[in-house]
Amino acid sequence: MLSTPKGYQFAVTDAGFHKYPRNNLALVLSDTPATAAGVFTKNRFCAAPVIVGKEILEGKPAVRGIMINTGQANACTGEQGIQNCRTTISLLAKALNLAPKDILPASTGVIGQQFDMNKWEKAVPLLLANLGKNNATDFADAILTTDAFHKISSRKINLVGGDVSLLGMAKGAGMICPNMATMLAVVLCDVQIDADLWQSLFRQAVDQSFNRVSVDGDTSTNDTVYGLANGASGISATAEDTSILLEALTDVLSELAYLLVKDGEGASKVLHISVVGAKNNADAELVARTIGHSPLVKTAMYGRDANWGRIVAAIGRSGAEFNPNDVTVSLCGYKIFEKGQPVDFDFDPVLEPLLKAVDIAIDVRLGEGQGQYIFKASDLGHAYIDCNASYRS
Amino acid sequence: MLSTPKGYQFAVTDAGFHKYPRNNLALVLSDTPATAAGVFTKNRFCAAPVIVGKEILEGKPAVRGIMINTGQANACTGEQGIQNCRTTISLLAKALNLAPKDILPASTGVIGQQFDMNKWEKAVPLLLANLGKNNATDFADAILTTDAFHKISSRKINLVGGDVSLLGMAKGAGMICPNMATMLAVVLCDVQIDADLWQSLFRQAVDQSFNRVSVDGDTSTNDTVYGLANGASGISATAEDTSILLEALTDVLSELAYLLVKDGEGASKVLHISVVGAKNNADAELVARTIGHSPLVKTAMYGRDANWGRIVAAIGRSGAEFNPNDVTVSLCGYKIFEKGQPVDFDFDPVLEPLLKAVDIAIDVRLGEGQGQYIFKASDLGHAYIDCNASYRS
Repeated sequence: MLSTPKGYQFAVTDAGFHKYPRNNLALVLSDTPATAAGVFTKNRFCAAPVIVGKEILEGKPAVRGIMINTGQANACTGEQGIQNCRTTISLLAKALNLAPKDILPASTGVIGQQFDMNKWEKAVPLLLANLGKNNATDFADAILTTDAFHKISSRKINLVGGDVSLLGMAKGAGMICPNMATMLAVVLCDVQIDADLWQSLFRQAVDQSFNRVSVDGDTSTNDTVYGLANGASGISATAEDTSILLEALTDVLSELAYLLVKDGEGASKVLHISVVGAKNNADAELVARTIGHSPLVKTAMYGRDANWGRIVAAIGRSGAEFNPNDVTVSLCGYKIFEKGQPVDFDFDPVLEPLLKAVDIAIDVRLGEGQGQYIFKASDLGHAYIDCNASYRS
Repeated sequence: MLSTPKGYQFAVTDAGFHKYPRNNLALVLSDTPATAAGVFTKNRFCAAPVIVGKEILEGKPAVRGIMINTGQANACTGEQGIQNCRTTISLLAKALNLAPKDILPASTGVIGQQFDMNKWEKAVPLLLANLGKNNATDFADAILTTDAFHKISSRKINLVGGDVSLLGMAKGAGMICPNMATMLAVVLCDVQIDADLWQSLFRQAVDQSFNRVSVDGDTSTNDTVYGLANGASGISATAEDTSILLEALTDVLSELAYLLVKDGEGASKVLHISVVGAKNNADAELVARTIGHSPLVKTAMYGRDANWGRIVAAIGRSGAEFNPNDVTVSLCGYKIFEKGQPVDFDFDPVLEPLLKAVDIAIDVRLGEGQGQYIFKASDLGHAYIDCNASYRS
């Protein structure tokens, strides 16, 4: 049962951006101006909607809506692409009697292709005709690309002044747009909140969630997470509410991030990599990311193989400081490596059935200090190759 | 036609380290003490023969030979493993009337397994019985594991005092021992050379060759490159010879490194990634490595897909500094991306036949400064998954 925040309307339509029929243009509109936050890709080649979205968010603005298209990423499209992005939000804003800066844009799809502006001109009235007829699930469906399922997470949050609702929707699959697989997420809330606090909570929650998962280690030119808080609940966030809001936001984004990995292109498993006992958190992160990005670890997990040697080798080359004799590695809850050697126990038959699960726990203790980090990564199997070796051809 | 240095004898035998018959123990012995150099894995979990080999090389020693076994890596074997490694070289040294520190050890194979010392005791006399009956090719064959072909490169070098010979032999396949695929290389020369100079040339040549290739981004616990120079040619290296020696050594190691990538586990292509115009060499290296390690670029190349967007996205997330509008990307010699956009030219039909080649050139210009770097990487396809998803099972 979704907990849908008050004061938002949804609309989706088929704008003809694909060769086949499907909804590929989606809008969420707040009844009143909403406090907006955004976190964007760090890729130096950032897409036109990222450039325009950042511009709009400068100076803590309130916005009215977010419009997302699939089909074309509008990335690597030069000045023309930026101009086209501005035109699309102007078309919508004009029809709604709003200013262009009231609408945040996001795009995902093939990069290097210019928009067909005729299609946009025809699509905007169709989109607006559906306003209020569609719901959050329609929105979550319309923004998907190569995803196998939609990604929605919601919470009711009990604040000092009363209940507010938080709703997140995301798309993912791979991490890169030439594969039509940019990561996009939209979070809606009906709390009344200070713009600086909202952006700060948002950035912290993204760092704890989307920044701690990986399908293929890539960062797309379009990655965007937007958050709106429109105050329609009539409840204002107080200083006492900060931690509960951050916790709920982190929960929702973490659930979406988990679904992203689970639906990673060609993924069959989610590796939950936990590193503790590092010299510091940065060292723990190094170890966790090296394991999560290792093709040899990922193929072993795909092959349901308790190959402790590959995990150990990844730890050893991560660059983190530790004494090899102090390291322990556990797989699916069973310790398989300690004191520089595999444990003296025939763990393969014990682990064989456990390694068939979708969720696999890899726990590393370094015995060096208090640093820790948790990272989620997909496995690597034939479906990944199928999905990625022949996309454009 | 191999240019074999003077004063070396080879021996190989089947020591029974595998379940099936094959030569798995190899020795090269110099007639006289040879100046020795070594470069080892940076993995914190380093194997017993790496620990013992480093010990022997401390203090610029001369050694008489190198003994390499396949089957067991003698890594993650604790104190017992180190003790066993010492015993193996003692067995050989005793039979040859030498000291243990005259023999450098190296191992490759399954990690976490202790040697069967009975097999070693029986094998050493068999090995020595073959001394002089085997040649360099037998040696290069005996050190292979999952390799598809042996890797040999040699040069005759014209020094001021006369000609000397340089011969390199390597094994590779994957980069990690649980897959029996440690990178090992042995280089033999008959020049007379100062130990410090030899080690210095050696380290520079390794940095220009083996350190600039990748199959899967992993570093094994056993990676070792040894170099011997025994002076049997009667020619001493002078100060004037330094650059020509370095060039030849770099050539031989680069050829071996190329063969390593070409024979990478499941590889069908060698990507030659060249980055120029970076702010500095470190930035160029960042860009080249990010492209070479990107699963999305690697699968695109496997799929013969001129997917410039994935190359551009890798450049953009590398962390290097540049202006996106100054970047150009060429594939197989054709410029496909410049000024922030794909070039206005239907390059797919032109590139289609070229992308069928084994060797693929990816050239990146950043337009920022004088930094440059060259990196070689394999592609990523189904054979890699087949090879790595089911090794232990």
